[in-house]
Amino acid sequence: MAMVCLSDFEAYAKKYLPKIAWDYFAAGADDCTTRDENILAYKRIRFRPRMLRDVSVMDIRTKILGSEISFPVGIAPTGFHQLAWPDGEKSTARAARAMNTCYIASTYSTCTLEEISAAAPGGLRWFQLYIHRNRVASQQLVRRAEALGFRALVLTADLPYTGKRRDDVRNGFRLPPHMKLKNLEGAFEVCKMSPLDPSVTWNDIYWLRSLTRLPIIIKGILTREDAELAVRHGVQGIIVSNHGGRQLDEGPATIDALVEVVEAVRGRVEVYVDGGIRKGSDVLKALALGAKCVFIGRPALWGLAYKGEEGLQDVLRILQDEFRLSMALAGCASVSEIGPHLVQFSKL
Amino acid sequence: MAMVCLSDFEAYAKKYLPKIAWDYFAAGADDCTTRDENILAYKRIRFRPRMLRDVSVMDIRTKILGSEISFPVGIAPTGFHQLAWPDGEKSTARAARAMNTCYIASTYSTCTLEEISAAAPGGLRWFQLYIHRNRVASQQLVRRAEALGFRALVLTADLPYTGKRRDDVRNGFRLPPHMKLKNLEGAFEVCKMSPLDPSVTWNDIYWLRSLTRLPIIIKGILTREDAELAVRHGVQGIIVSNHGGRQLDEGPATIDALVEVVEAVRGRVEVYVDGGIRKGSDVLKALALGAKCVFIGRPALWGLAYKGEEGLQDVLRILQDEFRLSMALAGCASVSEIGPHLVQFSKL
Amino acid sequence: MAMVCLSDFEAYAKKYLPKIAWDYFAAGADDCTTRDENILAYKRIRFRPRMLRDVSVMDIRTKILGSEISFPVGIAPTGFHQLAWPDGEKSTARAARAMNTCYIASTYSTCTLEEISAAAPGGLRWFQLYIHRNRVASQQLVRRAEALGFRALVLTADLPYTGKRRDDVRNGFRLPPHMKLKNLEGAFEVCKMSPLDPSVTWNDIYWLRSLTRLPIIIKGILTREDAELAVRHGVQGIIVSNHGGRQLDEGPATIDALVEVVEAVRGRVEVYVDGGIRKGSDVLKALALGAKCVFIGRPALWGLAYKGEEGLQDVLRILQDEFRLSMALAGCASVSEIGPHLVQFSKL
Amino acid sequence: MAMVCLSDFEAYAKKYLPKIAWDYFAAGADDCTTRDENILAYKRIRFRPRMLRDVSVMDIRTKILGSEISFPVGIAPTGFHQLAWPDGEKSTARAARAMNTCYIASTYSTCTLEEISAAAPGGLRWFQLYIHRNRVASQQLVRRAEALGFRALVLTADLPYTGKRRDDVRNGFRLPPHMKLKNLEGAFEVCKMSPLDPSVTWNDIYWLRSLTRLPIIIKGILTREDAELAVRHGVQGIIVSNHGGRQLDEGPATIDALVEVVEAVRGRVEVYVDGGIRKGSDVLKALALGAKCVFIGRPALWGLAYKGEEGLQDVLRILQDEFRLSMALAGCASVSEIGPHLVQFSKL
Repeated sequence: MAMVCLSDFEAYAKKYLPKIAWDYFAAGADDCTTRDENILAYKRIRFRPRMLRDVSVMDIRTKILGSEISFPVGIAPTGFHQLAWPDGEKSTARAARAMNTCYIASTYSTCTLEEISAAAPGGLRWFQLYIHRNRVASQQLVRRAEALGFRALVLTADLPYTGKRRDDVRNGFRLPPHMKLKNLEGAFEVCKMSPLDPSVTWNDIYWLRSLTRLPIIIKGILTREDAELAVRHGVQGIIVSNHGGRQLDEGPATIDALVEVVEAVRGRVEVYVDGGIRKGSDVLKALALGAKCVFIGRPALWGLAYKGEEGLQDVLRILQDEFRLSMALAGCASVSEIGPHLVQFSKL
Repeated sequence: MAMVCLSDFEAYAKKYLPKIAWDYFAAGADDCTTRDENILAYKRIRFRPRMLRDVSVMDIRTKILGSEISFPVGIAPTGFHQLAWPDGEKSTARAARAMNTCYIASTYSTCTLEEISAAAPGGLRWFQLYIHRNRVASQQLVRRAEALGFRALVLTADLPYTGKRRDDVRNGFRLPPHMKLKNLEGAFEVCKMSPLDPSVTWNDIYWLRSLTRLPIIIKGILTREDAELAVRHGVQGIIVSNHGGRQLDEGPATIDALVEVVEAVRGRVEVYVDGGIRKGSDVLKALALGAKCVFIGRPALWGLAYKGEEGLQDVLRILQDEFRLSMALAGCASVSEIGPHLVQFSKL
Repeated sequence: MAMVCLSDFEAYAKKYLPKIAWDYFAAGADDCTTRDENILAYKRIRFRPRMLRDVSVMDIRTKILGSEISFPVGIAPTGFHQLAWPDGEKSTARAARAMNTCYIASTYSTCTLEEISAAAPGGLRWFQLYIHRNRVASQQLVRRAEALGFRALVLTADLPYTGKRRDDVRNGFRLPPHMKLKNLEGAFEVCKMSPLDPSVTWNDIYWLRSLTRLPIIIKGILTREDAELAVRHGVQGIIVSNHGGRQLDEGPATIDALVEVVEAVRGRVEVYVDGGIRKGSDVLKALALGAKCVFIGRPALWGLAYKGEEGLQDVLRILQDEFRLSMALAGCASVSEIGPHLVQFSKL
Repeated sequence: MAMVCLSDFEAYAKKYLPKIAWDYFAAGADDCTTRDENILAYKRIRFRPRMLRDVSVMDIRTKILGSEISFPVGIAPTGFHQLAWPDGEKSTARAARAMNTCYIASTYSTCTLEEISAAAPGGLRWFQLYIHRNRVASQQLVRRAEALGFRALVLTADLPYTGKRRDDVRNGFRLPPHMKLKNLEGAFEVCKMSPLDPSVTWNDIYWLRSLTRLPIIIKGILTREDAELAVRHGVQGIIVSNHGGRQLDEGPATIDALVEVVEAVRGRVEVYVDGGIRKGSDVLKALALGAKCVFIGRPALWGLAYKGEEGLQDVLRILQDEFRLSMALAGCASVSEIGPHLVQFSKL
């Protein structure tokens, strides 16, 4: 079967992954309304394409926090890549480097940060962080990431507790015995009690700032109020995210929330978005609405499930080709020409 | 099969209850539009969740008419609990007390008020009342309820006549011979002519007031005009309700009507809502829009059908856990932090 | 099978009528969008029911053009009743009289006006008229109707040519040889060329007026502009109608058009509506939006198909009971209490 | 099977064409959202039909760029007609002439312009042009078309690159060996590299103008901004088009874009529209919203697939009859009476 678009990878993954792994990756909270809305909301945005502009030379590169990437699509932090492919996050790191884009490694990786770094030296990587009850554990992770050359910290803000994902409850989901949350080994006992600290507040950004010179990006912001607080607390970037619809169900689709966050931020920090990206034209829409870059979660896992790093490169390459083509067909030859004039919200 | 969410109980009840009982509980008037809208309307409300607020200590208790309950979900008045479980309303009373919440016992119970009281002494209970053509019968019921320690009267306003529920007509629904409307025995002959008085008007609130010192709550209000009348006639509370979509079809969903009732009431009395609650996050939405508490009807019956009082406790515990989690994920540590800023109406 | 609601009669008719007859009655123009919209549009209207009003004595009678009918539902003009029941329009006339309501007999009846009159002497009947190329034929019909005691003329305005009903084309629909358009026999040869005159304009109302002292009602108006013209040309009533969706597809649903027609008319003449009435509560909605009375087309044919005049009475009785009940549940004891405050348009 | 409406031809073509040909004609870009929206958008437009206007004599003729056509429906440029019928574009030309309407021959024809001209001498034809990297090739095509009596040039603006049509990728679509892009033979090697020039800009209109005295029409405009540019660069007409939804997916439906283009153009040049026309009433809607004429793409191919030129005439005749009937039922006796008062946009 030809792998023509991202849905082909989704169908493959659904067919070949163990059910418990597929269910875990696919899960949304409660009724999965927000998970699905992330995708549907893109369909309500319509292009206003412009004709007869010179699109013979296309430049789809962009910069995030000063680093150039080959096109504005990075890898969002997701856990447990070994559930998708034996080499796990090492494959992810290699694919991201091969495609010259950014990979946000998750705290919940099944490879250590050291293994990830060694797998793809020189790749652009950020590190996703939860703040743990055991603050020393978090501090150590931050220091390791900084020492290994990760170039930013991505603090996940939307998981004081884990969302209710019904299939995981039904399946009694847990990692197979041969997989480990390797970055957390020794630091604390997993699974007895959630190691995450639900008392974290905005002031903890200052604590985090005191630990590191890396830029801090906050992930999980969905309102203008929180966007303003993020800027005031000195973060360098915001990822508009609802955790793939896995936390609070029936919040806004991320592409809808992006609009109000971008308005509130007024260019003071970079804004990114994840959730619901399935086509190159979705990337174009996100950029038109003010995102500097998007990050893909489940599609990256489907790519891994298909053929490891090669499969993930296939996914990224398809997105890249589709993004370039949709830019050209909309009349933009470079990312700098993308703007809100390109889109309108459908009334339906 | 694991009982993970309320739909699991619904599926169980649909499978194991006698068809005539399932149909009776499930029935809506006419095309069942309003019954279904009660649920759909919740899905059109979107959260605006706030991040990085200390939600390590969660307090989900609330008070209704001055009585504390463990979380803002009570049991709405529904009839004929023996159709769902042999012990009928006695089981309901026990489950409500075990979960420390309020149970509104129906006039159309298959146990007497005395049996209900004896089954769970000390539980917080209100008594739901219809006004009968035979006013003496109603008066006696009010006096019995007051003497038994019921703490409020809930006058149902939306049933001058019974709605047209097609399945009940097709099934020729009537109670099995071994079940009785025990509270009405002797007072009048049931089934010849409806014992309810369709000439009741607002002035009858004054008559009811003259019979009892209990607070009077009116159930079935759907418009700002009637909410204003209710307040002016001295009720202590309003339950926004459309009788589970069993009376006038194609009226408003209760969560939509709640908004206009709350606006009209301007805090002068407590406002509650029933209809369409299927998840803990629905409770959060209702509170955000101004309800002091919600009441569940059919889900309580599904719980009874599953395992009697134990099954109903399961249902309440799931709602409680989901409510607490959705509060935390929305950034609220106590019920007092819930407000309209948490929600917006989807344009779709 | 119990006949509980109008859909039961529809299902019966679909099952037992010859396909060519069912198709003819069910047909809509083109994609049948307007036929179906007539029904869907009712579902977008929501009641605002009022509580605690004395509805112990219900009065559902109304008057149309000064004649009292038992409830505000009459029989719309439809053709070829013998396709549904052997006695054809004679049965229709008897059922209408038995239920004390108005029957608008069609020019395209399979019984003569004389037979119809003789079948149910004293019944309230109006006569539906097309203007033919052969004006003498039309004039004779008007005179016969007037002489037979028909109390109004209903001029159909929306059929200069017949709409394109695909199933009729596929079926090669024509009347079985034993049925005749009896009112037109002798007047002109049917089926060679349409006998209807597509050059009719508003001025022909004056010509019609010159022929008769009967009130003239115009049927098929859908816009405020035409409603204004109708009033200015001296008609006594307007039936908002799109011919059951059988003429121009993708015009407005009649209940939507009713609103603008009622506004334009400002009470100067009576306004009625047909199309899409399937429940008693639809009648209540139409009256709340300003209709004096509604007329049913296909449901009457389903009733005939079920059991002739008895079946049609069943249909009317169900509508009557449902209308009375929905009035009571909305808080209205008489037709005069029905008004626009009872409804709102759903935003969905 | 009777061929009653255009869907009948679609069903026939889907059944009898080789899958690869059907897929090619049916294809839309990406998710085919825009392809399908072209049709759905028509359904959201509602007529406001007017009654009692003299429609006994119908005149449905119109003029485009000064040439009279029998009704306002022409043949849009589509490629590879031999995939639908052995005689290919020669049949198309004959059918268009027989029906006295305009045929826009595509650069990607499987017959030469000379063959097309010879097949139907005297027919009204326009020539659709892409601008090639090899400008000489384009220049030669223009000169040939002009010499052969084509009466306008239609420059396609929305194809700097070919859209991503998933089925074509999966099928590995290419022309069967016995078919050729005959107009391009010798001019350059097809299929190695796209011969189209993605650097074309508005200034190339001036270059095109310098080559020919034919009117220039630009095809593929979807925004008011580009409509204004088109007028300023001196084109004689605009075809609002999204290439049948085959280029940038999730742009506007053409009938929606027509509104803004017509507003921007303010009558300075003629505006046409293609995409989504499936019924005569769609033509009426397009004209009501300001189009001078519509063009059909896929329906013409279905007609060819059915019976060659005869089948295409059937398609055109059905559209003609439906258009005439819908005009009459809306109250218009001639094209000049059609205007925006006839339609409104549904809120749904």
